[in-house]
Amino acid sequence: MFCVDAIQSLGALPFDLNECHADFVMADGHKWMLGAEGLALFWVNPEIRERLKLYQYGWHMTREASDFDAPSWHPADNAKRFECGSPNMLGAHVLDASLSLLQEIGMETVSAAVLERSEFLIERIQGSPTLELLSDPTPQRRSGIVTFSHRQIEPTQLHQQLMQQRVICACRGGGVRFSAHFYNDLDHIEQAVLRAEQLK
Amino acid sequence: MFCVDAIQSLGALPFDLNECHADFVMADGHKWMLGAEGLALFWVNPEIRERLKLYQYGWHMTREASDFDAPSWHPADNAKRFECGSPNMLGAHVLDASLSLLQEIGMETVSAAVLERSEFLIERIQGSPTLELLSDPTPQRRSGIVTFSHRQIEPTQLHQQLMQQRVICACRGGGVRFSAHFYNDLDHIEQAVLRAEQLK
Repeated sequence: MFCVDAIQSLGALPFDLNECHADFVMADGHKWMLGAEGLALFWVNPEIRERLKLYQYGWHMTREASDFDAPSWHPADNAKRFECGSPNMLGAHVLDASLSLLQEIGMETVSAAVLERSEFLIERIQGSPTLELLSDPTPQRRSGIVTFSHRQIEPTQLHQQLMQQRVICACRGGGVRFSAHFYNDLDHIEQAVLRAEQLK
Repeated sequence: MFCVDAIQSLGALPFDLNECHADFVMADGHKWMLGAEGLALFWVNPEIRERLKLYQYGWHMTREASDFDAPSWHPADNAKRFECGSPNMLGAHVLDASLSLLQEIGMETVSAAVLERSEFLIERIQGSPTLELLSDPTPQRRSGIVTFSHRQIEPTQLHQQLMQQRVICACRGGGVRFSAHFYNDLDHIEQAVLRAEQLK
């Protein structure tokens, strides 16, 4: 079975189920989809749905879900069978609002802005005397993530110092990861790179 | 192994882990604990912790949880091993606030108020010509839940008509369930019973 972890795509880049030929796709909602933590998306091809073994059981995942007098129970026939317990309702409302925002702006516009920002970062870091690009710059390999290191400063130090200067980033893959979304100003991204360059 | 489902106790009645001799205890947070849906409590006796087979895996449940360069991983030694993915942070803040409120008031006070309300309901319904008590009225069997039926009206009808009159209740166990918490006024509870009596 072919599983696609779409956590770094959904909300950043257009994603077409028909093109990826996945048996199932999942992505947590709190990254590019701008949701709150604790709610993810899961899609499963209806044809293989019953081949996925159930390990979680609860009152929501049954065919008889709101019939409290039912003498027996069965897993729901649709994908509700994978949603065992009471849903994270606050998280669902947050994700509904953030996905609506992304749809309103349009994923083509969002993804063009995300790729414009990573292209800006890639070129800016490639031309920097103190920073070193770690991400693959090949256009078809680009995403919203750009990872780089500093020639004099060790990655955990670099990350810590940037965070102290309120540059929100992550320490990953031997460097620091910048992940600019569509709403980040190019000016702010330039400021963040400048701060990284000026560290000692 | 002895599992205690404490969903109708925690937040309504005092609960002592040492007295119940459970191997594990769980309760959803959205009932008497006044949390939001999608976050539950789970306690497991540390001595049997490793005998519970793991079925859920994720980045949070490992010993190496925030070390992204770790070459291998192991389930956490503590109960974190059962918290696989990103936690429901909004739900955690809601539950933190509601449990703090219950602690501030004190569970002795809360539970005295809950039992006072169920005693009021039991006596009121026992003395009613149109309603019939279904809950066990024995003092040591009491909880926050009081279930009753109507001599002329079928339970689902009774439930529907009460909800239309904004009496929030549940249809369960061959009748309608009232679950008054510490903050429900006795006057309001009397009004709710009166409305049930006046239905036709």
